[in-house]
Amino acid sequence: MSKSRLKMIPIGGLSEIGKNMMVLEYEDDIIVIDAGLMFPGEEMLGIDLVIPDISYLVENREKLRGIVITHGHEDHIGALPFLLPQLNVPIYATKLTQGLVRVKLKERKALSAAKLKVVSPGEQVTLGKFKVEFFLVCHSIPDAVGLIIHTPVGIVVHSGDFKLDYTPVSGKPTDLSRLAQLGAQGVLLLLSDSTYAELPGYTPSERVVGEALEHIMADAPGRVIVTTFSSLVSRVQQVIDAAAKYGRRVFIVGRSMSDTARMALELGYLNAPDGILGRLDEARGLPRDKIVFITTGSQGEPTSALVRMANRDHPQVHIHHGDTIVMSATPVPGNEAVINRTVDSLFKQGAQVLYDKVAKVHVHGHGSQEELKLLLNLVKPKFFVPIHGEYRHLSLHAKLAQSVDIPKDNTFVLEDGDILELSSQSAKITGKVSSGNVYVDGLSVGDIGGVVLRNRRMLAKDGIVVAIIAINRQTGRLVGRPDIVTRGFVDTRKFRSMLDESRDLLMRTLDHTGVRTAEWSFINNKVRDTLDKFYYERTKLRPMILPFMVKV
Amino acid sequence: MSKSRLKMIPIGGLSEIGKNMMVLEYEDDIIVIDAGLMFPGEEMLGIDLVIPDISYLVENREKLRGIVITHGHEDHIGALPFLLPQLNVPIYATKLTQGLVRVKLKERKALSAAKLKVVSPGEQVTLGKFKVEFFLVCHSIPDAVGLIIHTPVGIVVHSGDFKLDYTPVSGKPTDLSRLAQLGAQGVLLLLSDSTYAELPGYTPSERVVGEALEHIMADAPGRVIVTTFSSLVSRVQQVIDAAAKYGRRVFIVGRSMSDTARMALELGYLNAPDGILGRLDEARGLPRDKIVFITTGSQGEPTSALVRMANRDHPQVHIHHGDTIVMSATPVPGNEAVINRTVDSLFKQGAQVLYDKVAKVHVHGHGSQEELKLLLNLVKPKFFVPIHGEYRHLSLHAKLAQSVDIPKDNTFVLEDGDILELSSQSAKITGKVSSGNVYVDGLSVGDIGGVVLRNRRMLAKDGIVVAIIAINRQTGRLVGRPDIVTRGFVDTRKFRSMLDESRDLLMRTLDHTGVRTAEWSFINNKVRDTLDKFYYERTKLRPMILPFMVKV
Repeated sequence: MSKSRLKMIPIGGLSEIGKNMMVLEYEDDIIVIDAGLMFPGEEMLGIDLVIPDISYLVENREKLRGIVITHGHEDHIGALPFLLPQLNVPIYATKLTQGLVRVKLKERKALSAAKLKVVSPGEQVTLGKFKVEFFLVCHSIPDAVGLIIHTPVGIVVHSGDFKLDYTPVSGKPTDLSRLAQLGAQGVLLLLSDSTYAELPGYTPSERVVGEALEHIMADAPGRVIVTTFSSLVSRVQQVIDAAAKYGRRVFIVGRSMSDTARMALELGYLNAPDGILGRLDEARGLPRDKIVFITTGSQGEPTSALVRMANRDHPQVHIHHGDTIVMSATPVPGNEAVINRTVDSLFKQGAQVLYDKVAKVHVHGHGSQEELKLLLNLVKPKFFVPIHGEYRHLSLHAKLAQSVDIPKDNTFVLEDGDILELSSQSAKITGKVSSGNVYVDGLSVGDIGGVVLRNRRMLAKDGIVVAIIAINRQTGRLVGRPDIVTRGFVDTRKFRSMLDESRDLLMRTLDHTGVRTAEWSFINNKVRDTLDKFYYERTKLRPMILPFMVKV
Repeated sequence: MSKSRLKMIPIGGLSEIGKNMMVLEYEDDIIVIDAGLMFPGEEMLGIDLVIPDISYLVENREKLRGIVITHGHEDHIGALPFLLPQLNVPIYATKLTQGLVRVKLKERKALSAAKLKVVSPGEQVTLGKFKVEFFLVCHSIPDAVGLIIHTPVGIVVHSGDFKLDYTPVSGKPTDLSRLAQLGAQGVLLLLSDSTYAELPGYTPSERVVGEALEHIMADAPGRVIVTTFSSLVSRVQQVIDAAAKYGRRVFIVGRSMSDTARMALELGYLNAPDGILGRLDEARGLPRDKIVFITTGSQGEPTSALVRMANRDHPQVHIHHGDTIVMSATPVPGNEAVINRTVDSLFKQGAQVLYDKVAKVHVHGHGSQEELKLLLNLVKPKFFVPIHGEYRHLSLHAKLAQSVDIPKDNTFVLEDGDILELSSQSAKITGKVSSGNVYVDGLSVGDIGGVVLRNRRMLAKDGIVVAIIAINRQTGRLVGRPDIVTRGFVDTRKFRSMLDESRDLLMRTLDHTGVRTAEWSFINNKVRDTLDKFYYERTKLRPMILPFMVKV
């Protein structure tokens, strides 16, 4: 054993769902596990995406040996297009994951420079002083892996996102034997998925959904429209299988779903009997009870095919009385309200809508408490760090670990940026690197700061009032009455006289203040205070007030 | 039986949770059931509250005999302060409900003009041609009632919000005998609560929560902080009872919780053994395991005591390691993200947090599918209208009714404003009255229209750019370079040169266009198009662009 220490640094994805990214460092070698993005919370107004802050990696660029990806979901691969220009290192992933990475990189025109290496479960890759072995795990996407990382101070096991489905759609369950073997051998550190640490019991098998889909295909009086995540390839497979069994043809609607399905078909991760899949225009001639559509929109995304159908705005597909809509996905927290509105619109058009609360049309891809305990029991790690989840999930997972006799002092609930240093005998938090959210807003990556967001929040609340004050450059006197322009504040027709009064008030105030002699910053404050007080008294609203002086 | 028809018109609360309001009309008599408000969805930027559109009632003011209230929750009483100035009629409610109405009216300074009439369960009130009888139902607030309305064409039963708890905290279950009696007699129309029509089985009894609270009070190593809705008086009672049993004192934190508790104590709906309740400053001397706080904040409201504690911003109460926080409420859809953030902050400060997913600390107040079917079976109505819920809940409730043999043609899933006309033999939808959302924004009720909201949404997304163009009044020429002011668009330091370029571009464009001769509307459009195109190319953002001409 070496005297050097292993450093483990989560730089994204702890305390928040998404943008997962983990750094392992030993002497002059660094490897990165996953590079995900997060969709912005509602308080991040107008922000398109959130990615991790990689300044630590940029500073230590020469140490970086590679990025290892566990599976092809956005929260594990989505940041790659934004990071590759700064970190040009090889990316290691299984075949389907690599296919999804390609699709992402192509979308953002970052494919050409990427060095993609395909690995197989069971394979080992040497990256500096790290040997990384990939083992199969069951998750809501095929070809997902966990990692066994051999380091100079001991073995690190990274679960990826996983559950223990003994009858998965792909036919390949999580590789428990390999994990048991490692447990016997001795594991230094386990990093394990905490997303569903709140839920008691076991997560049901994907088979449950397959059975529900078969009943729906058999019984639905008209068309069946299934919506799910485009990356949920195994769900798409289940829909195709159930449709085939009951003589229905399947039509894929929408670009992202089509792109992913095409890639998965090419790579052999999706299988369709001849003649089952069709082009959308072929659906026209078919009886309604022979039709299945698969599409995105399960999160209520405004531009998705399902939401456009719900809003009677889709060019090809209109909802009919007798259609059955299957929402085969869980709402991502924060999306509930918009999903509910979509479901309501579909019901209003006479469709029957099946969703997780009323039918078994979705199971999630993460292990529940008993599965998490089983993994801890098999792997028997000396140290434990819960990963993938918000802070409460990590805390609850840490408690679970204690319940299966991992000592409390050997369990670390980390936050992004924390440095955990490990030797073969000890582990402790020794510092913090810079980490946090980098906002993608249009073309700008990381340039949007707190001020811009704060301003958007103010604007969103009560709108804006621009006060334009013309001053004669020579005399320093007010030229005419100040002008007032508002947006998002009040109905300007109904409040015309109030707005007019505020112009007069402003003129009186400025005359009194003596524009000629005063500093602009003083006038600026005076205008703000005067208008803020006046408008608040009259409306109980506080618009953003933006005084502007024109010197003429 | 008369030849006239009974009209039933929901003018709020169908298709959306909240702002419940129902009109019953027969010849020259109108009664109104409930007058609720709705909290705005996240797309209603800056709006404070949403109330129903009562223009139909204002037009028919002379027919209005009274407003009947089923229980004291915001979504049933919250609109009263805004409506009373326009509809000065008596309000009928049970004792506790009336107490809560008083608190609301007082807050909004509308108490003095109100005519409040207290009724008891079992009592009958004559309002024009309607006889209204009140019957006890079990809900998450004491003194909740359903209504039996005797009309010239038959009996209408209105369930209020209800569940069938056989062991309620108040000791008074839903009055099933009276309903069975009516069912035997013959009921024309049932209106029944659909809020939990999605859930199979039975809603658990409040007793489940009482037991969970007792375990928590017994086992918690330190202080217990319980958060719930201030109107959930029976939950507060359970907390007091459990605290008393284990020798803890109870301190109520926050104004709305204190006001409600004081009123409920005075009216006898809350009972506390001597010495249990205390003033907040008395907590200081007590050992931590003898302390219980009750407070609001279960919905993550930013100004609530719990959220301030979570943000280390509460003047009196700071979270300690070893505190146990009990979130005794379900998240209202749309609030999940902010509640999750609050829970995470509490965990980060070393508290143990118990919430519905991990402990039995809340049961909801609405009947699940089996309870809804039982009510349908007892009341045996000729016609059925599901009420209280979003459209999908109403649709599912209608399907439930069909499963217990209410004919499909006798079931009406209505939307707000629909007029259902009933005789003793028939029912059909005959028209629509104006209905919809009235926004309360600061002091303004109903003046905020679509334009203001649309503007706020635009402002929230990519901010605003104001272009100020000074023109010489005599010559019609541009005076100097146009000015550009932005808020919420980009970081103005980092984008200074881009903003500068856009001023030059604007000057060139306007010189070329010939400001002198052109119409302002033409220039206005030219400025918008030029800047929109330029900024979108550079940033992929589309701020609101507001050109303004100053004539000097």
